[in-house]
Amino acid sequence: MNDLEKLLTGAHAGRIADIARLLSIVENNEPEATDAVRLTYANTGRAILVGLTGPPGTGKSTLVSALTAEFRKSGARVAVVAVDPSSPYTGGAILGDRIRMRERYLDAGVFIRSMANRGHSGGLARATRRIVSIFDALGFDVVLVETVGVGQQEIDVVRVVDTVCLLTIPGAGDDIQAIKAGIIEIADVLVVNKADCPGADEAVRYLLQMLTLGSQRTEWRPPVVKTSATDGTGLKDLIDAIEQHRAWAVKSGEARRRRTEAMRDEIQTLLRERVLRDLAGRVSPKALDDVVSRVVDKTLDPYAAVDTLLGNLGR
Amino acid sequence: MNDLEKLLTGAHAGRIADIARLLSIVENNEPEATDAVRLTYANTGRAILVGLTGPPGTGKSTLVSALTAEFRKSGARVAVVAVDPSSPYTGGAILGDRIRMRERYLDAGVFIRSMANRGHSGGLARATRRIVSIFDALGFDVVLVETVGVGQQEIDVVRVVDTVCLLTIPGAGDDIQAIKAGIIEIADVLVVNKADCPGADEAVRYLLQMLTLGSQRTEWRPPVVKTSATDGTGLKDLIDAIEQHRAWAVKSGEARRRRTEAMRDEIQTLLRERVLRDLAGRVSPKALDDVVSRVVDKTLDPYAAVDTLLGNLGR
Repeated sequence: MNDLEKLLTGAHAGRIADIARLLSIVENNEPEATDAVRLTYANTGRAILVGLTGPPGTGKSTLVSALTAEFRKSGARVAVVAVDPSSPYTGGAILGDRIRMRERYLDAGVFIRSMANRGHSGGLARATRRIVSIFDALGFDVVLVETVGVGQQEIDVVRVVDTVCLLTIPGAGDDIQAIKAGIIEIADVLVVNKADCPGADEAVRYLLQMLTLGSQRTEWRPPVVKTSATDGTGLKDLIDAIEQHRAWAVKSGEARRRRTEAMRDEIQTLLRERVLRDLAGRVSPKALDDVVSRVVDKTLDPYAAVDTLLGNLGR
Repeated sequence: MNDLEKLLTGAHAGRIADIARLLSIVENNEPEATDAVRLTYANTGRAILVGLTGPPGTGKSTLVSALTAEFRKSGARVAVVAVDPSSPYTGGAILGDRIRMRERYLDAGVFIRSMANRGHSGGLARATRRIVSIFDALGFDVVLVETVGVGQQEIDVVRVVDTVCLLTIPGAGDDIQAIKAGIIEIADVLVVNKADCPGADEAVRYLLQMLTLGSQRTEWRPPVVKTSATDGTGLKDLIDAIEQHRAWAVKSGEARRRRTEAMRDEIQTLLRERVLRDLAGRVSPKALDDVVSRVVDKTLDPYAAVDTLLGNLGR
């Protein structure tokens, strides 16, 4: 048994250190990442994949904690992926929340992973998708992906899941304004969190209004659920809504359509990575230096330089 | 003579419409761009390439106008490339300035091109470099590249030239603060513009101090020049400083070093573009659909899918 197989065995058995190492390999695209994905891929597709997004201050972290506790009641193993695209590192409030949450769950039934910026939107979404797949393959029953903000980057990230929950809170006029029409369209479930605060019903009405205005992609009509993470109100309703969406998505073919779209993107990325890696092997630094020098001397133009380096094969 | 050759002949003869069309072909990477570069490349390397950058409000556009007028006195043909990376389109103040400037120069000795955001930093720098090369090849004696701001994107863009002028103004405490240590290091000439305002000497002293603190890349020590674009003070000094830097850069090999670095980047980009284009020709949409479907069904993992698509050749 090689090192990677040992690691996978340990991770499957729930060893925290092995899970963490495996996730790092995949997240950082280390040399073992290819084999790690190949050896785990067949076991994916079982977990419930849920995304939670919404403007800052809508209580996403607290709701994720409460949802985790609710899922745990039925014995489900829960993985949490906390993504903060705005930060080059994950720190501050989000990390503080995680540490408190980690302290609460010292059992192997909950695993929390924080991810920070990968430089560009597509990279973060892909890294998140691979992390989610690993959790799925390791037998976690639920994977919750939490992102901060409502920009394009967050949308890309949260779309790696099967069911997207969009959070808002009562009286958050500005926050609701921030949820632009294009963003509400990716939501499968709408959540009015902090529903114990005044104005919850108005927020629900506002969301229903926005839904009516937006264009409907499918026959699924996103339900609006009122929750209060602090007193536990609506958590069961939210889980019901998530499970109903999942059941619909599987039956209607929407789940397969989304996975197909995601996998097409993933395979195209792998293809590009592969040909660029091959290119690096094909063009030696010395050969590159030689042609660059001739181009600077104007005895070769840049396009002829490319032909020369590729042995006139590429054209 | 084909269409492109006709266009090049017209552009060489100074026909405004032909120059504009040629620049668009190169800027937008249209199909004729390859031949346009190939046919003009041997004629590049003669123009003085000058970049002007600095925080907003330092009077870059006005100084560029005044410098253009000063260069014109000796009969030099001047091209201006105005780059605004912060804007998805070029408009507002910068465009207003251009229109006024264009009205002033109705002769063929001055050509002004505005460029807006190309989506990402590297793309904008490359498009700017290609535009600058075309102007150079068409026989313009001076190419002035003006960028707004002092971020990484502006640095990348302005580095396509041989001599970088960094602008500041008297009493601009905050603006000078914005010129961080890393940015002052790319400057070959430092300019205190609006030197008729109070505090010009303090600004000069401050810049000299920052230069002392910064690490010196080469034996070139950037001079500090005081200018006033409105009354013409210091314009001759600035042109002298630019010409001195150019003479030093050619003699010391710094000019060649920079062009080599830029050309290595350009050729690597062309290589990547080429292999990715070849990839698109190699993998049919139908073949991609087929393997994606098998990956979604889990009868193939994503890496095996890539092997299949590349006929196991790529590995």
